[in-house]
Amino acid sequence: MPASISFPEVALMGNPDDPRVLDPMHVLAAHLTAHGRRVLVSDAIAPAAVPGASARVPEDRFAAGAALVITVGGDGSMLYAARRLAGSGVPLLGINRGRLGFLADIRPAEMLASLDEVLRGEYDREQRLLLRAEILEGGRVVAGGLALNDIAVTRHDPGRMLEIRSFVDGRYVNTHGGDGFIIATATGSTAYSMSCGGPIVAPALEAIVLVPICPHTLSERPILVPASVVTEITLSESHSVCADVSCDGEVTGALTPGRRLRVRAAAEKIELLHPRGYDYFRILREKLHWGRDHHSAARPDG
Amino acid sequence: MPASISFPEVALMGNPDDPRVLDPMHVLAAHLTAHGRRVLVSDAIAPAAVPGASARVPEDRFAAGAALVITVGGDGSMLYAARRLAGSGVPLLGINRGRLGFLADIRPAEMLASLDEVLRGEYDREQRLLLRAEILEGGRVVAGGLALNDIAVTRHDPGRMLEIRSFVDGRYVNTHGGDGFIIATATGSTAYSMSCGGPIVAPALEAIVLVPICPHTLSERPILVPASVVTEITLSESHSVCADVSCDGEVTGALTPGRRLRVRAAAEKIELLHPRGYDYFRILREKLHWGRDHHSAARPDG
Amino acid sequence: MPASISFPEVALMGNPDDPRVLDPMHVLAAHLTAHGRRVLVSDAIAPAAVPGASARVPEDRFAAGAALVITVGGDGSMLYAARRLAGSGVPLLGINRGRLGFLADIRPAEMLASLDEVLRGEYDREQRLLLRAEILEGGRVVAGGLALNDIAVTRHDPGRMLEIRSFVDGRYVNTHGGDGFIIATATGSTAYSMSCGGPIVAPALEAIVLVPICPHTLSERPILVPASVVTEITLSESHSVCADVSCDGEVTGALTPGRRLRVRAAAEKIELLHPRGYDYFRILREKLHWGRDHHSAARPDG
Amino acid sequence: MPASISFPEVALMGNPDDPRVLDPMHVLAAHLTAHGRRVLVSDAIAPAAVPGASARVPEDRFAAGAALVITVGGDGSMLYAARRLAGSGVPLLGINRGRLGFLADIRPAEMLASLDEVLRGEYDREQRLLLRAEILEGGRVVAGGLALNDIAVTRHDPGRMLEIRSFVDGRYVNTHGGDGFIIATATGSTAYSMSCGGPIVAPALEAIVLVPICPHTLSERPILVPASVVTEITLSESHSVCADVSCDGEVTGALTPGRRLRVRAAAEKIELLHPRGYDYFRILREKLHWGRDHHSAARPDG
Repeated sequence: MPASISFPEVALMGNPDDPRVLDPMHVLAAHLTAHGRRVLVSDAIAPAAVPGASARVPEDRFAAGAALVITVGGDGSMLYAARRLAGSGVPLLGINRGRLGFLADIRPAEMLASLDEVLRGEYDREQRLLLRAEILEGGRVVAGGLALNDIAVTRHDPGRMLEIRSFVDGRYVNTHGGDGFIIATATGSTAYSMSCGGPIVAPALEAIVLVPICPHTLSERPILVPASVVTEITLSESHSVCADVSCDGEVTGALTPGRRLRVRAAAEKIELLHPRGYDYFRILREKLHWGRDHHSAARPDG
Repeated sequence: MPASISFPEVALMGNPDDPRVLDPMHVLAAHLTAHGRRVLVSDAIAPAAVPGASARVPEDRFAAGAALVITVGGDGSMLYAARRLAGSGVPLLGINRGRLGFLADIRPAEMLASLDEVLRGEYDREQRLLLRAEILEGGRVVAGGLALNDIAVTRHDPGRMLEIRSFVDGRYVNTHGGDGFIIATATGSTAYSMSCGGPIVAPALEAIVLVPICPHTLSERPILVPASVVTEITLSESHSVCADVSCDGEVTGALTPGRRLRVRAAAEKIELLHPRGYDYFRILREKLHWGRDHHSAARPDG
Repeated sequence: MPASISFPEVALMGNPDDPRVLDPMHVLAAHLTAHGRRVLVSDAIAPAAVPGASARVPEDRFAAGAALVITVGGDGSMLYAARRLAGSGVPLLGINRGRLGFLADIRPAEMLASLDEVLRGEYDREQRLLLRAEILEGGRVVAGGLALNDIAVTRHDPGRMLEIRSFVDGRYVNTHGGDGFIIATATGSTAYSMSCGGPIVAPALEAIVLVPICPHTLSERPILVPASVVTEITLSESHSVCADVSCDGEVTGALTPGRRLRVRAAAEKIELLHPRGYDYFRILREKLHWGRDHHSAARPDG
Repeated sequence: MPASISFPEVALMGNPDDPRVLDPMHVLAAHLTAHGRRVLVSDAIAPAAVPGASARVPEDRFAAGAALVITVGGDGSMLYAARRLAGSGVPLLGINRGRLGFLADIRPAEMLASLDEVLRGEYDREQRLLLRAEILEGGRVVAGGLALNDIAVTRHDPGRMLEIRSFVDGRYVNTHGGDGFIIATATGSTAYSMSCGGPIVAPALEAIVLVPICPHTLSERPILVPASVVTEITLSESHSVCADVSCDGEVTGALTPGRRLRVRAAAEKIELLHPRGYDYFRILREKLHWGRDHHSAARPDG
């Protein structure tokens, strides 16, 4: 193994319970080993499932032990991996099991060809912003988390409307009556935020989106602010309700009247590798079924 | 008291914990008594709070004992009253405590004048549709409820997307990935449904609206169907999730994979009384801040 | 030709300038002739293009001379044919050239099999509502038209906002500042109306949708009203602007301050034939790319 | 007049045909003169209308002759003035005639007090981005313009759908079938863009919004890109249609198949002055009727 070999140690991540994950992982491990790489897999994966792996280690050692992490799965696997690798400088490459993802943008059919390119050093490198959420009570952080997509505040009790107060850099924005509130990155703009009416934010724009969920006031709209701001969220004190705070869909803690959720750009970033010629708009078109032959609504000249 | 007197017995309803409710209730009781009516109030209200009342009875006797029920409060009080009076033939009149409601459409300032008109028989009478929800398991109804506004199916666990399958008259409509699903009446079209992107449905139209909540698939839209259809909702079986079923915002039961929610127009209707000249569009304009002087967005000629 | 033969005379319609139209038309003509039908085509089509036709007549004789009209083309061809056949009792069958349409719902590949079923009397028959638009000036109708999809009022001058006043059964609804206003049938609910935020209206619901186009006031929403109402539209008199009135996308006349547009359900209806087992929701799912494998937005568990 | 006096020459702008403009202009002129300022008004305004003015000059001399320009009117007057002052370094202050504007953010009642503050040097200064539009044919610019709010491409012919192709920094984005396309600044995000579903963009974010107007494809969404990009727009060549290109609502030229519209951040910026304590979110709340007492939709606990 020459000293200059790129990515000498590669870790493979993926959900071992998904039958479409282990097969490609097995193929990748064999291919990487044949190309002189050391291959790490999680010790949660049975040895027989990915026989070509060089070592089985806990996933939390990937950041320290690997020069590259490859996920096999959907965007959910990329979110999971990104939160664990954030700030480590270890880049992330995503191989899909089927449909193209926004983040896992290599199809199974192109898997080995794309991997070879990357191992030859032919790739596009891109940094993505993460958000850090902190729930404060009496000035003390009682819970927190990292998110690549979004921080969501959603109601804990069905049938009750939340009243959420939002602040940007200490300045009051609005009291949002409704189902909740999302603070999303550009990466997350095509995830939950989009289902709630949020716009698409190109990853090159250093912005975050504040999106009310099913707002009671019909003139509410998503608000775009610079990624450098501090956003704070409280619940109206008159309400004896409780909200859940989630980071990329995983519950991080509870927001209650009296507590404060503080969200800002995390100090840690994540590096994504893409095959050469990565084109964000092409992925958008494909994921959102845009294009000449996919018109949705019948018009007179249809 | 002449035999022909209209509404000889009038029941007053309202939330006794709301300080803006007891005062008008007190005034109404005295006024009604002075005009020869018997006034019923809930036995949950302290005698000293509404001294002019003729009798204190449990609220569930209002349907049998009153010729008219007047609520004092917001639209929530009207929803509460409507579900209890549905099918009784006893009409409902709504007096607001402050802001005009969609249902409680008499302002405090016009309260006595409007009441006198109604007592003289000068009013518009209108029937509104209710929905009946039934949760079935193995062919047996395990929970159910009535709704004037809407039946909502919302996720029980934060961060997880529901996969809801909908059927209209036994015909498969779609699998809705997202935060939930609403089946709303015309009355409910300006409530939760509207916050989720649903249209306004004039009460004269015998229709119900099927509204996906924050749908994952961007081309989903609210669907209007005749009020005569039977709508059924199930959860995708692959999901180990649970959803809450609410009627007008009150939880009625749980929908789990294997259960089925069936919704149809209730046999019971509710009668609303309005002051003469009731104008649905005027209420819309006022509630939604429409009108020449209330433009929201700056345009070149603004 | 036995007396009981169904649809003894069949007219074929389609845009002869579309190269994907003449070939199927030619095949249809031969097939129909072989099955003992008389085949009419427009005298605007060259004899050599559809040699199997029995007669060439002006299209406006189709309503009188045919027992069935088949269009070859997209939904635009169905709209064109429907406006010409409305009220005649002659049913309409739509064969698509490629993608499935909302109205032209037979694919080329199934064309002859579906046609044989229809000729054997195996089909679903459905009536659809049309709208009649009349532009009035000083009480006199100065222009008008029929529409199967929608009547649209759009600004004539770029850069200027229209101020449109709407009335339902003589009752003022609102003044809509924006790009225009649409009055759509259930059929038209998946056309221009949908691009402007209107809901899907099942054809079985006798309703029309009033849709403001790009409304200045953010709390405006589409309004559903019974198909039995009369809708009227005027322009605010303070504006020296002019609007175009279109029926199914074809300009019918001009609306100016002082004129009045009146829209109501037309006395004429149109009959659509569908292959047995016609399923509106299946067409919706296909046209709008709904379905499990077509999620649009990345979510954590995607 | 001491050498250090701030804003020694002040120009007043406004639409002289608006009766609510001349009176405040007259008061301002007298006040400014009394405070030792030279007051310029347009030579299109009759001398008797604003007698206190020091000089009447053509408006195009304001940029060279004034240290401050004050508009009296709505946001439309600010747009007009901004396009004329862009790049001059002369700041702009906006006094409204009635309702608060997004740009003209001083109410008539506070006019003189705010003005005195500004003359004492107490104000917040803010730079806003403008867009430059150029229509190219065969590599040559055939028309162009500046916009503070937006560049809009809208269809010239009613009833016809435009097919617009968009490119960002030379990269193809999408073909947008619909009524048109908007490229808006943060300033313009609350104008036409917002009526078309665009988000609110805080002025501090250096971004532009690409907004399809009434898109045919239901999964289209507004796209946020950095203000540093070059956006290009062409029409699909198969369409024999024509589109109008407007800058802040004023038609600048025609886009035809074969031509290309190029939009980028203008080299010129505009400076806005605000009274101390300028709060963008407060203006948003007021303009969009946000706030606790202005709920729009009835919810159970309303």
